[in-house]
Amino acid sequence: MSDYHPMWKSLGLDLAAHDAMLQSVGQAYQETFLSQPNRPEGMKYFDFVISEVHGLRIKELLDAKAQGRKVIGSYCTFVPEELILALDGVSVGLCTGGDFALDLVDQVLPRNTCSLIKSAFGFKLGKVCPYIESCDLVVGENTCDGKKKAYEIMRRFIPNLHVIDLPQVKSEAGKGLLLAEYKRFAAKLEELTGRKLELGKLKAAIVTVNAKRAALKRLAALRQADPAPISGLDALLVSQVSFYDDPVRFTGAVSALCDELEKRVAAGQGVFAPKRPRLVISGCPMAFPNWKLPAILESSGAVIVGEESCVGERSTRWLTPENGNSVDEAIAQLVDRYLQIECAVFTPNPTRIEYAEQITRERKADGVVHYSLQFCQPYQMEAGPVVEQLEKDSIPALRIDTDYSREDEGQIRTRVEAFLERLHA
Amino acid sequence: MSDYHPMWKSLGLDLAAHDAMLQSVGQAYQETFLSQPNRPEGMKYFDFVISEVHGLRIKELLDAKAQGRKVIGSYCTFVPEELILALDGVSVGLCTGGDFALDLVDQVLPRNTCSLIKSAFGFKLGKVCPYIESCDLVVGENTCDGKKKAYEIMRRFIPNLHVIDLPQVKSEAGKGLLLAEYKRFAAKLEELTGRKLELGKLKAAIVTVNAKRAALKRLAALRQADPAPISGLDALLVSQVSFYDDPVRFTGAVSALCDELEKRVAAGQGVFAPKRPRLVISGCPMAFPNWKLPAILESSGAVIVGEESCVGERSTRWLTPENGNSVDEAIAQLVDRYLQIECAVFTPNPTRIEYAEQITRERKADGVVHYSLQFCQPYQMEAGPVVEQLEKDSIPALRIDTDYSREDEGQIRTRVEAFLERLHA
Repeated sequence: MSDYHPMWKSLGLDLAAHDAMLQSVGQAYQETFLSQPNRPEGMKYFDFVISEVHGLRIKELLDAKAQGRKVIGSYCTFVPEELILALDGVSVGLCTGGDFALDLVDQVLPRNTCSLIKSAFGFKLGKVCPYIESCDLVVGENTCDGKKKAYEIMRRFIPNLHVIDLPQVKSEAGKGLLLAEYKRFAAKLEELTGRKLELGKLKAAIVTVNAKRAALKRLAALRQADPAPISGLDALLVSQVSFYDDPVRFTGAVSALCDELEKRVAAGQGVFAPKRPRLVISGCPMAFPNWKLPAILESSGAVIVGEESCVGERSTRWLTPENGNSVDEAIAQLVDRYLQIECAVFTPNPTRIEYAEQITRERKADGVVHYSLQFCQPYQMEAGPVVEQLEKDSIPALRIDTDYSREDEGQIRTRVEAFLERLHA
Repeated sequence: MSDYHPMWKSLGLDLAAHDAMLQSVGQAYQETFLSQPNRPEGMKYFDFVISEVHGLRIKELLDAKAQGRKVIGSYCTFVPEELILALDGVSVGLCTGGDFALDLVDQVLPRNTCSLIKSAFGFKLGKVCPYIESCDLVVGENTCDGKKKAYEIMRRFIPNLHVIDLPQVKSEAGKGLLLAEYKRFAAKLEELTGRKLELGKLKAAIVTVNAKRAALKRLAALRQADPAPISGLDALLVSQVSFYDDPVRFTGAVSALCDELEKRVAAGQGVFAPKRPRLVISGCPMAFPNWKLPAILESSGAVIVGEESCVGERSTRWLTPENGNSVDEAIAQLVDRYLQIECAVFTPNPTRIEYAEQITRERKADGVVHYSLQFCQPYQMEAGPVVEQLEKDSIPALRIDTDYSREDEGQIRTRVEAFLERLHA
């Protein structure tokens, strides 16, 4: 393993804090992932990616920059990576999955802010995220109130911040607004890269991203098998890596993993012993390295077979048509595609529960765990009606509202165990 | 005083709970308002309105309904009452200023919900609001995440609910969205009333509402005088009544009050003894009967001379042009007018702080109290930067985050006293 300290130093990281963080995440990874039994061989690629997530991948980004490409970081699946790729940019998701530098965060954000937003600030203020320090542009988006207003504050620390406005209703006017915003984003990228958005490159980018999403859809569908051929933790990890990795290489690795899982399924082999309660998770995204709830669920004896989440199937369900005849038409097709995302920031948002129920049936799941972050108003507001509807439709549902701290792990485990007993009864 | 119990019963109120609430609010009114020294004679009208706010005013609404007019209730200053009046509707603000039936509210809303939203639900679920029970249509609006998602739940209890979508950015696309939404609202009102929106009646409605706002602006400007001719509590009460009362009658009463205050100012008479610290409040709206913070401020020895708030000057600062040549043009002028409102749901929202500083200077205020409700993400997020900017501009600022409970009154009073001492020093 190379010594990346000079590279991290050149990015302005706090080396001591960063080393401590890497060690802590590495240990959690060891305990949570590497200790799992019977993992697919194909996960070795993702283990390697994680081991080099702040190393080799950052070197790749810096090499790309040296070749004149731009690195664009973002926090949300509403940021259309097709536009970034079409302009030879590198699209990376930014760190939001762990508590860091909370003392600094609490000086600029209200305490009543969700862990995901606090984390985005913590990684920046604590100087432990080589991704954000490599970015030529950071892209925010007006999804929830928390993020929308936090970006105003983030601009102090990240002047090269572009915020995409979003509608709150999937109306014609809302669609028009998003179209205007995607075009404004494209213009910003053209300005940044000094390139012109061309139809051929945009279509190629759409093909690349579609291939990535199709591979992830194939992985999701394989989890229908009973017994499940892959743990929920590993499937989540693959989704998490999708935000960091080179899309073409990633697609190849996911495809190879799927080939292996298909053989497992054909042979009736599962990752765990049979008869485990099967669960679907629905709710807030779980960004790297947020593994708290799935780790509790699977170490309590369940297997997760689907994620109705933005780090999960909400990001991959829909592909974009590849037949646009002009840049404008292709962008309009992107708008149609992205506006299908069933984020709780939209009102109303009825298809989210429909999809949660659909995959619960398709994957033969025994129940749904609704996951919301404390102070995430959109998902906490939807939690009540979603859980109510699931139970009404005879799908047992457990509501977990939590944050990134470890304080409530015992309490959650107790509730999870009671829920799993109910599923067995 | 008439016995309104048969009327309340006919509206389906919980009579025992409603009697208890009236008694509690009446007592608070006695202690907070009627005990104030040296009140203007003109406040007697508002005392009367409050004493009949669930009585005579409700009878007026029911009489209007009997004559074929429709009653439209709303929760936000983004609902254009001009459209309601132009279609012979009666526009009323709905109760959101006090805790009620919290046990029922907690069954349908997350605990992490602001008091204002909880209050809206409490008055409905507790069956103690004759306004909402008189409504032919309730109008919501997608301002914050909390309200946006709460309206989805409210629809269970209030099927006749129309929600106006709002943009999050004051862009051209955002303006287009609001225009489409105001037209959709007008169409909804046309359908409800069976009338057609006509230019003449719309212009007359704009004149009526402008006159109301102009009277309130005149009242606000009179508070520049030192000593202030009216208490902040009484000025707030006038703003609160503006959401309930008949607009023409209300405008007359405010004008009469202003005539009286002008004489006070000319004579150098103040409502309090001179040399009180003068404060501006900036932040969340204080709906009837939420008087907690101003009561603490003025009983601690300050006088409030301005409200940068939606129950306050944010609702009245801008008038609408009265020269529209078509219904479409007049609606577009309304959109331009309403989109100036400096609500924290917009990003960015720089003119809010500018106006807070402007009235602080104009009214010769010694400091600003920033008021946000717990779990109100937009205002809690703006609180930090607003307070910071004020202090940077040498305006002492105190940040209060609270709710409708009385538990923290002692703690707030202590902080207020320390702040007032700082102003004197």
